[in-house]
Amino acid sequence: MQAVRVHGYHGRPIVEEVPEPRITSPQDVIVEIGGAGLCRTDLHVIEGQWQEKSQVSLPYTLGHENAGWVREIGSGVSHLAVGDPVILHPLMTCGLCRACRSGDDVHCANSAFPGIDCDGGMAEFMRTNARSCVKLDPGLRPADVAALADAGLTAYHAVRKAVPLLYPGAFVVAIGAGGLGHIGIQALVALTAAEIVVVDTSEAALELAKSLGAHHTVRADGDPVLAVQEITAGRGAHVVIDFVGERGTEAQGVAMLRRAGSYFVVGYGGHVHVPTIDIISNEINVIGNLVGSYNDLDELMTLAAQGKVRLHTTTYALDAVNDAMDDLEHGRLQGRGILVPGAR
Amino acid sequence: MQAVRVHGYHGRPIVEEVPEPRITSPQDVIVEIGGAGLCRTDLHVIEGQWQEKSQVSLPYTLGHENAGWVREIGSGVSHLAVGDPVILHPLMTCGLCRACRSGDDVHCANSAFPGIDCDGGMAEFMRTNARSCVKLDPGLRPADVAALADAGLTAYHAVRKAVPLLYPGAFVVAIGAGGLGHIGIQALVALTAAEIVVVDTSEAALELAKSLGAHHTVRADGDPVLAVQEITAGRGAHVVIDFVGERGTEAQGVAMLRRAGSYFVVGYGGHVHVPTIDIISNEINVIGNLVGSYNDLDELMTLAAQGKVRLHTTTYALDAVNDAMDDLEHGRLQGRGILVPGAR
Amino acid sequence: MQAVRVHGYHGRPIVEEVPEPRITSPQDVIVEIGGAGLCRTDLHVIEGQWQEKSQVSLPYTLGHENAGWVREIGSGVSHLAVGDPVILHPLMTCGLCRACRSGDDVHCANSAFPGIDCDGGMAEFMRTNARSCVKLDPGLRPADVAALADAGLTAYHAVRKAVPLLYPGAFVVAIGAGGLGHIGIQALVALTAAEIVVVDTSEAALELAKSLGAHHTVRADGDPVLAVQEITAGRGAHVVIDFVGERGTEAQGVAMLRRAGSYFVVGYGGHVHVPTIDIISNEINVIGNLVGSYNDLDELMTLAAQGKVRLHTTTYALDAVNDAMDDLEHGRLQGRGILVPGAR
Amino acid sequence: MQAVRVHGYHGRPIVEEVPEPRITSPQDVIVEIGGAGLCRTDLHVIEGQWQEKSQVSLPYTLGHENAGWVREIGSGVSHLAVGDPVILHPLMTCGLCRACRSGDDVHCANSAFPGIDCDGGMAEFMRTNARSCVKLDPGLRPADVAALADAGLTAYHAVRKAVPLLYPGAFVVAIGAGGLGHIGIQALVALTAAEIVVVDTSEAALELAKSLGAHHTVRADGDPVLAVQEITAGRGAHVVIDFVGERGTEAQGVAMLRRAGSYFVVGYGGHVHVPTIDIISNEINVIGNLVGSYNDLDELMTLAAQGKVRLHTTTYALDAVNDAMDDLEHGRLQGRGILVPGAR
Repeated sequence: MQAVRVHGYHGRPIVEEVPEPRITSPQDVIVEIGGAGLCRTDLHVIEGQWQEKSQVSLPYTLGHENAGWVREIGSGVSHLAVGDPVILHPLMTCGLCRACRSGDDVHCANSAFPGIDCDGGMAEFMRTNARSCVKLDPGLRPADVAALADAGLTAYHAVRKAVPLLYPGAFVVAIGAGGLGHIGIQALVALTAAEIVVVDTSEAALELAKSLGAHHTVRADGDPVLAVQEITAGRGAHVVIDFVGERGTEAQGVAMLRRAGSYFVVGYGGHVHVPTIDIISNEINVIGNLVGSYNDLDELMTLAAQGKVRLHTTTYALDAVNDAMDDLEHGRLQGRGILVPGAR
Repeated sequence: MQAVRVHGYHGRPIVEEVPEPRITSPQDVIVEIGGAGLCRTDLHVIEGQWQEKSQVSLPYTLGHENAGWVREIGSGVSHLAVGDPVILHPLMTCGLCRACRSGDDVHCANSAFPGIDCDGGMAEFMRTNARSCVKLDPGLRPADVAALADAGLTAYHAVRKAVPLLYPGAFVVAIGAGGLGHIGIQALVALTAAEIVVVDTSEAALELAKSLGAHHTVRADGDPVLAVQEITAGRGAHVVIDFVGERGTEAQGVAMLRRAGSYFVVGYGGHVHVPTIDIISNEINVIGNLVGSYNDLDELMTLAAQGKVRLHTTTYALDAVNDAMDDLEHGRLQGRGILVPGAR
Repeated sequence: MQAVRVHGYHGRPIVEEVPEPRITSPQDVIVEIGGAGLCRTDLHVIEGQWQEKSQVSLPYTLGHENAGWVREIGSGVSHLAVGDPVILHPLMTCGLCRACRSGDDVHCANSAFPGIDCDGGMAEFMRTNARSCVKLDPGLRPADVAALADAGLTAYHAVRKAVPLLYPGAFVVAIGAGGLGHIGIQALVALTAAEIVVVDTSEAALELAKSLGAHHTVRADGDPVLAVQEITAGRGAHVVIDFVGERGTEAQGVAMLRRAGSYFVVGYGGHVHVPTIDIISNEINVIGNLVGSYNDLDELMTLAAQGKVRLHTTTYALDAVNDAMDDLEHGRLQGRGILVPGAR
Repeated sequence: MQAVRVHGYHGRPIVEEVPEPRITSPQDVIVEIGGAGLCRTDLHVIEGQWQEKSQVSLPYTLGHENAGWVREIGSGVSHLAVGDPVILHPLMTCGLCRACRSGDDVHCANSAFPGIDCDGGMAEFMRTNARSCVKLDPGLRPADVAALADAGLTAYHAVRKAVPLLYPGAFVVAIGAGGLGHIGIQALVALTAAEIVVVDTSEAALELAKSLGAHHTVRADGDPVLAVQEITAGRGAHVVIDFVGERGTEAQGVAMLRRAGSYFVVGYGGHVHVPTIDIISNEINVIGNLVGSYNDLDELMTLAAQGKVRLHTTTYALDAVNDAMDDLEHGRLQGRGILVPGAR
């Protein structure tokens, strides 16, 4: 089969023929890929930024946002059938540790991460385990939702954690209305009656935010902290969700909070730097957010099936992966890029 | 009556005769002071550190940890009677804003802070409002519990917020077993079956911690992060409560966390400085903690009445305030200093 | 001023001239009534059903769903100004007991209930206390929202408590789409992405439910338990909110639950009767629901201002109260009846 | 090997030789039994009360409270080693359904229940799956803790759910200080600073309760509702945990509640029967409780290892099962009966 393989760092991946994956353990599942999302993390991988952390041996197959159809199941798998459309949770988890048993499987003590530390889904077929497969509603096409598996799931997870703080009329600021942010905004609209403020540098992104239901939009190149203070009658926001997490949004996000407010970190690259006296005198919180759990992904697929969360995508054939990467790198990619095996 | 008054910054307060406070509004309460705690904050006040923040007009009376007996009540007060022993919540709150109505009265939109921005309790009598009075169990003496009103309440509040994370066997690290920390440890013992690890620079403080129920003690002058990793089988603590919050404990506290762990900031003076990638990849939280609510103080008084929380105190007469301050400043004060009007 | 007064039970109230209420304590507020909702409870009151429970001395003024404008404030009131449009929380609470301080003011240890145990709002003016006044958004007219003060607030409160159980795609059944139910459905749509099933005996009520966003409707005169089982793939609902609570809905509501499901009782008149073995083997819950808190009412007003909750009303002049009662009693009243002083 | 087998209902089980269980699937684990608790449910099983519900085919082996040592593991098991001491969660769960993934594995959509619907642990060896094994602290002997696997776990689970309601000084009533109740009381002491009231018909049970830390004891044959009202200053209890659930405790338990209180049903046999008006006017809750989750059992083992929960047991050899059943039936059994293979 065809697969997008990394043979060395600091160059581009190669599309080549490799053997199809096989069932090797009773909980294995082979999935025919219907769509594999391309993500900025893939660029970081080929630049070698994950080399030390992942310890993956080269060559290996990229792709950590995957959806498709079940093609083969191990002897221990009884809840899936060949032909089932599925989206794959990004982690293959153990199901046995306290985290897995608490609905917090992202912190599984024994997980693998296809596309990062073992073969991923930029290929015609991929091996995963039974625990990672979320069955799709018949109304959803794998290629349309694949990119929700990681980027969308991360945004949804952060919103889900913030929901209990967001009573009707409470103020939530989303910093960044891009790939993650625009999913987060849709999730906020679906799950809360909060006042949604969106901050972005791009007028187009703010227009999109408004069309998705944001109540207030703020250009990031002015004084967004002041703008949020004005929108919130000088009191600040109950929750700030920072989908950027670098280039100054970290300090701005904290400065936008009201007393007892919470700053949710989703994007990364920068630093949170706050005097402890400010943390305690305002009793604010800084909340980390990683990708969501399996149940989070299942819920996000429900929102997608209900039409409450939609993703803009551009489709590429598997062997056009480098065109897609070029487009992503040069800002020419509209929405999320999806590699579709067999597409032309 | 006698009162400890600040007439100017950068000097010591003066003990002088002033008129007794009078009822001026229907919700007022006049309390005869049985004990007023002396706190490091009082030193900061007279050094002028709070001058700008509090905007208090001089001269005024110190004392923000107060307990005593009700001596007079306003016409609108029906739930208190003259003679009732009471401890005073440090804030006089409005009872009308959303925060007050949500059990979060510390973030009252209209509060006053006696001893900081108006006359406090280092005096024979003090005026407060009906909302701040917590009735004491007959078994508790005001002078014994006064210092729980602010320092103890802060420690209790942080522990109370951490309790839902602390299932039996979960690891909690308390950094600092001093004035706040030793109350926090007692609250942890009373409310959880967690494994309690205490870090301090002082061997005596660690001995005290052990006698209060700590399961592990760690000298802070070695490598406390490594020590915590060893105690937790390399996984880190579920919760770190930092009663110090300066001189490096901020970084150590964060480094002691396991994945999805929470660092509670109580002490202050330093900075939290964490790369956003560490916040998200471990999905950790930084939780600010201010003083507790009225209900928190009521609960803490229950623990005190049950004998589960005890405070070590040294008593001074009101006109010995400067001896007490000297002792505090030079580390000669055992436990908390309590000013007792009429004591000799 | 004109007021609707009860002089004796088992007859109709009388509209008569009475003196205007006056400020008698510093926290008092006089409100010019813009609308007073008429409710089935008013019929129960005049039938004497509340006589023993309320211990009210006759004559007194009816009206427990009130909104209008502040006309006069006591000396201790600083957060309200004459002219402010307000809706009144049904209870006058103390603000001092643990319940009031915990956001649970409905269980205030010292509350009064205007229209039930003291003079209510079916009059030109009414006295209340400062704690009960929720300021209205300028876009909301008192007469349009008055009936949300009690009936709407009760429905909203139950939904609010159920929201944490209602993840996207979870099933919630609302039994009854009448006065309370149709508010509950709107709140469910605003705050969740749950699958909403509505059960009612009336086809018109089910049509209304659909237009408000219900996903499934079930005629109560068939086998509604079976219908719910079919809609939920044989597993039952996560939450059932019973706005009826009598004539068999109690048993049906419990029978509609899935394992670990929760039955919320809102309506009353019947009995919950369940073998303990069924309660434990399915680990189900029965959750009581009274009227909501002040903060709940504030949130409901936000939803009303956002246009997410709308009430159908019919307006009557104050002296047409008996026409309104006749219409209510004989099922001729469309939506909620609102008495409007000065209306013709 | 020897096993206690049911060949027909309405008679006693037979101790006979049967083949040892074998690994049949990759997730299987064979456990050498160190102790199997005898429980009133076993008597109900042999009387045929579970015949229809369990649909088990005879003959089969009893025993649903099991602990011992791992003797063999399937090819897919990597977190257990031969020789590990373990206690077995009563359910063999799938790990794949939403309940299992949410920490609510008791409501697993695909579970088996050894000793009830398949072969249990009253035998020298037993087959279970990897998900059910909780590793024991080296300080705990399987025979000492086996009976915590079901009865103890049920009591712990109910307490665990009640803990968030039990702030220091809140009142909790435990009805019944027998097999489940005395574990519940120990868990309450370990996890709360609540005021614990214990109601029982037996003076000996109340003495035990006091020695375990109960603050108030009430003889059930007087007027226990009145007694609880007196202890709670006429306001009632915040939480009632009913370990009996029959013979009138159901009505008493509800009557002991304060406003907004919660009645936790653990024991069964009777009926909860409450007018809906009482449920709503006091806003009370009825909370069902089944056995606890795997994580609950792990926590309970931590409490046992800490010495905070202790069980009184009487040991019998496997072939003395009928003596044990006689003793249980005739009230001669002190504490819980434990069958120990190889014991004499």
